[in-house]
Amino acid sequence: MTPRRLQKVLVANRGEIAVRVMRTCRERGIATVAVYSEADRDALHVRLADEAVEIGPPPSSESYLVGGAVLDAARQTGADAVHPGYGFLSENAAFAQACGEAGLVWIGPPPEAIRLMGDKTEARKLMQAAGVPMAPGTPDAIAEAAEAERVAGEIGYPVLVKAAAGGGGKGMRVVERPEDFRAGFERATSEAESAFGDGRVYVEKYLVGPRHVEIQVLADAHGNVVHLFERECSIQRRHQKVIEEAPSAVLTPDLRAAMGEAAVQAARACDYVGAGTVEFLLDGGAFYFLEMNTRLQVEHPVTEMITGLDLVAEQIRIAEGEPLGYGQDDVRIWGHAVECRVYAEDVPAGFLPAPGPLLRHRPAAGPGVRVDAGVEEGDEVPVYYDPMVSKLVAWGRTRDEAIARMDRALGEYDVAGVRTTIPFCRYVMGHPAFRSGDFDTGFVAEHFDASALAPSPDAERTALLAAGLEALGRGGAPTNAAGDGARSPTAPAVSRWARRRR
Amino acid sequence: MTPRRLQKVLVANRGEIAVRVMRTCRERGIATVAVYSEADRDALHVRLADEAVEIGPPPSSESYLVGGAVLDAARQTGADAVHPGYGFLSENAAFAQACGEAGLVWIGPPPEAIRLMGDKTEARKLMQAAGVPMAPGTPDAIAEAAEAERVAGEIGYPVLVKAAAGGGGKGMRVVERPEDFRAGFERATSEAESAFGDGRVYVEKYLVGPRHVEIQVLADAHGNVVHLFERECSIQRRHQKVIEEAPSAVLTPDLRAAMGEAAVQAARACDYVGAGTVEFLLDGGAFYFLEMNTRLQVEHPVTEMITGLDLVAEQIRIAEGEPLGYGQDDVRIWGHAVECRVYAEDVPAGFLPAPGPLLRHRPAAGPGVRVDAGVEEGDEVPVYYDPMVSKLVAWGRTRDEAIARMDRALGEYDVAGVRTTIPFCRYVMGHPAFRSGDFDTGFVAEHFDASALAPSPDAERTALLAAGLEALGRGGAPTNAAGDGARSPTAPAVSRWARRRR
Repeated sequence: MTPRRLQKVLVANRGEIAVRVMRTCRERGIATVAVYSEADRDALHVRLADEAVEIGPPPSSESYLVGGAVLDAARQTGADAVHPGYGFLSENAAFAQACGEAGLVWIGPPPEAIRLMGDKTEARKLMQAAGVPMAPGTPDAIAEAAEAERVAGEIGYPVLVKAAAGGGGKGMRVVERPEDFRAGFERATSEAESAFGDGRVYVEKYLVGPRHVEIQVLADAHGNVVHLFERECSIQRRHQKVIEEAPSAVLTPDLRAAMGEAAVQAARACDYVGAGTVEFLLDGGAFYFLEMNTRLQVEHPVTEMITGLDLVAEQIRIAEGEPLGYGQDDVRIWGHAVECRVYAEDVPAGFLPAPGPLLRHRPAAGPGVRVDAGVEEGDEVPVYYDPMVSKLVAWGRTRDEAIARMDRALGEYDVAGVRTTIPFCRYVMGHPAFRSGDFDTGFVAEHFDASALAPSPDAERTALLAAGLEALGRGGAPTNAAGDGARSPTAPAVSRWARRRR
Repeated sequence: MTPRRLQKVLVANRGEIAVRVMRTCRERGIATVAVYSEADRDALHVRLADEAVEIGPPPSSESYLVGGAVLDAARQTGADAVHPGYGFLSENAAFAQACGEAGLVWIGPPPEAIRLMGDKTEARKLMQAAGVPMAPGTPDAIAEAAEAERVAGEIGYPVLVKAAAGGGGKGMRVVERPEDFRAGFERATSEAESAFGDGRVYVEKYLVGPRHVEIQVLADAHGNVVHLFERECSIQRRHQKVIEEAPSAVLTPDLRAAMGEAAVQAARACDYVGAGTVEFLLDGGAFYFLEMNTRLQVEHPVTEMITGLDLVAEQIRIAEGEPLGYGQDDVRIWGHAVECRVYAEDVPAGFLPAPGPLLRHRPAAGPGVRVDAGVEEGDEVPVYYDPMVSKLVAWGRTRDEAIARMDRALGEYDVAGVRTTIPFCRYVMGHPAFRSGDFDTGFVAEHFDASALAPSPDAERTALLAAGLEALGRGGAPTNAAGDGARSPTAPAVSRWARRRR
C-alpha cells in the first residue's frame, strides 16, 4: 500500500460527528464535502463544509442511508475518500465495499472486518478462537425454541436472549426463570425479525450488575495494532450510553493490560485496519467480549483527551497508508476525562426525544472543557434524527478534578428552547455512587428518580418561558443581540451557576 | 501557616480573567463575589458570580482601581479572600497589604515581593545579587543626563533608556547613536515623570532582535519553588503580546533548565509565594532578566495546557497554606499550546481599539481548543477597558499540530459587530517565519503589512453588513434564534472556513 495523501473527503454523516470530522480535515488541509437531507439544508455541518450536496428527504432511509446517493455526491464533487462517522452507513460492509469499487478511499476498516464483526454469531466464533474471553453461551445462533431452552438450562439463569443481527438493545430479552423462557425467546425473535429481518438469536449468561468497559484500538495497514486504553460507559439510559469516562475508576494496571491485549487480539483476528472499539462486560475482575464496533465511537473524545491523539487524524493517516509510527509503550494515560452527552430529551418523561428550536445555546468553556456540537444557537434540533445537541467533555489531572470541572461546565451550559439531559448529567455528577466509582450499568435504574430533579424551582422551564416571552415581545429575538441594553433572561447578580444549582 | 479553606472569594477584576477565576472557584466549591463598574452592570463576570457589588463608574480609576471600594465590597459580602486577576490592583503592594490588614486572604504574593519587583531598580539589584543573568547596564536608576551618557558609552550602543517605575513600554526609548542620547534620555524621563510620577531611568544594552521568553514559577508558603517551563511571547504589537506559545520552538533542554533555575532563584530572592512570571530577553543562547510579574499572566493558559495544572487552583491552594505537593521532576511538558488574543481592534488602522456591540460571537470549539471569553453574543465590548473579546488557545501533540489547530479554530471563529485581530492572527499562523520558529520581537514590524489582509474580498465587512441589515429588517435580531427557517448571513454550502480563507 503506497501512502496516498487525501485531497477531498466526503463526510457521509450529519450533526456533531460530521463537524468533528471536518475540523480534523481542515487541520490537515483536506477539503470537505457535506451531504445533507432536505431537513438539514442549513445545518452546521453544511455551513462548515467546502461543498455540500443534497441527497434526499428525511427520514434517513431516504437520504443518509442511501449509499448510491452518497456515492453520486462523491462522484459529482470529485471527493477521493469517504468518512462515514458513526451510525448511518458506517458499519455497512456493502457500502464500504462499494466505495472501494468506486475508487474511493474508505476511512474505516476493510468491508470483511465490518461484515464479520457485524454478524454477532460469526464474531463470537472468531473471538472464541482468538482466545478473547466470552460469557458462557451458545456459539451459534439458534432458531429453535426447544434447543435454546436446553442451552439456557445448561448455562444457568438468568440468561440473555439476544438477536444475532442486533445492536442497541433491540431484540434483547433477559429471562430470569425457566418458566419465562419461551415467552422471552418469542419476543426476542419476533423483535429481531422485524428490526433486522433476521430472527436468529443466541443465548448467553446474563451478568447481574456488570460494568460496560470498552477498549479503543488502532490498527494500521502494516500489521501494527495498539490499544488506547479503556472507556467506562456504564452510565446508560434505555441501554444507551449517556456519560462516559476514561480511564475507568476500577481498572487495575494488570486488568487494563489484559483487556487491552484481548482487544488487540480481537482486532488481529479479523484483520482489522483503522480505529475500532472492542466492548466488554466487566464483572468484578472478569471480563467478557460483548461486541466490536467497527467505526469511530460517539465517546471517542475522552480517549483523545487522555492520550493526546486525534482519532480522526489517525483514521485518515491509516487510510492514507501511513504506519502508526508508535508502539504500545509510546501511548500513555494523561489525566482523566468525562463526557456528557447533551441530548434534547425530556428526562422526567423517561428520556423522550424533545427536539425543537435552540433559542439559546451558550455552551460551557474555559480550562479543560471541550464541546463538540452539531448545532448552534438559532438552529433547530430536528425531529428526524438522534436529538443530540452536543458532547460536553471535561479533562482533569484526576478523576475528582474532571468531575468537578464537568459539574461546573454543566452548570454554566445555557440552553433554552428545548429540554435537555443537562439536569440528569448534573444529578449523576453529584451522586455519591458515581463519585466513588462504585456503579454499574444498573446505575440509572437503581439511583435515578426523575422526581429528584423536580423539587427545586424549575429553573429550566422558567428560563424557557422568559426566553419565549422575550421572543414574542421583541420580534423573534430571544437573545439580546441588538446591543440595546435590554438583557437576556439572566439578571445581573444572579449567577447562572447558582440559578441552576440543584 | 495553618491551612485554611477559602469559602468566598471576591474577584477584583472584570472580563475574561474574572470569569476564568470564578470557574476554578466554582470547581472548588468556593462562592464568588464580582465587583463591577456601572459600565459592566450586565457583564458576563457579573452574570456568573454568586453575588455582585457595584463599585463605581468607569473609567477604572473610579472603580476597579479604587482599593477602598473593593475592600468595602468584600466586607459587605463577607468574602474571606481577594483574587486580583491581572492588571488593575494586582500589582499594587499597598492594596495587597490592606487586604491582609482587613483580615482577607490575598491570593497573590506577599506585598513586599510585589513592591520589590515593582521597583525596576531594586529588582535589578536583587536579581544581580541572586546571580540571575542581567543585560549589561546600570544597576542603579540615574537622574543625571551626563552620568547616564557616560554609562551608555561604556555599555556600547544601541542602548535602552527605561523608566525605573515603568512597564508596558511607557517611558522607554531606544538610542542608536551617542549624538541622540540626550534627546532620548529627556523624552524617556519626562514620559516616566508624567506616567509614573517618577522620572528616574536606567540604561541598559539594547538587544537587537531578541525573543521574549518568560518562565512561570510557583512557590508555596513552605519554601518549595518550581518552575513550569517557558512561554514564548515574541509576537507583539505596540509592545503588547498578542500571540504566545509554550514551549518555545528554540529552547534546548539545557537552556530550558538554566532559565528555569534562574527563575526559581529570582523567586527565592524575593521570598516569593504564589504564581509569578520571570520575563527574560533571549539573545541566541544568552538570556537576560527583564522583569518579574507578580501576578497571573494573561497568557497563563498555554502553561496550563502543557502541564495539566490549573494555575488559579494552585494560587488558591497556596493561599490556603497548602504545600505544592510536587517537585520539579514531577512536572512534565505534554505537547504544545498556542494562544491568540482576540481583541476588538482595527488592525489596518494600527491595532486601534474598536469596541462595540458583539452582534455575533460564535467562538471555535472541538478537539484541542479552549476559549476563555469575557463576553458573549449580545454583549458589548465597552470603550473603557482593554478591548479583549477572548483568548483562543489550541493544543496539539506537536507545535505543527497546535498551529494547524489554531488556524482551523481562527477560521471557524465567527464574530460580527466589531473588527477583531483574528485576521492578523491567521496571518501569523500562516507565515513561514512563524511556522519555522525563527522569529523575534521584531516579527510584526518586519513581516506584517496590514494591506496583506486587504486584497481578498473583505469577508468580515461583508458579514458585518449582512448582520446589520438583518438586524434592521428583523427587529433587532441579527442571529436567527427565532427558529423560523430564515438564516443567518452564512448561506448553505458556503463554508465559514472557506469564506474566511485568505
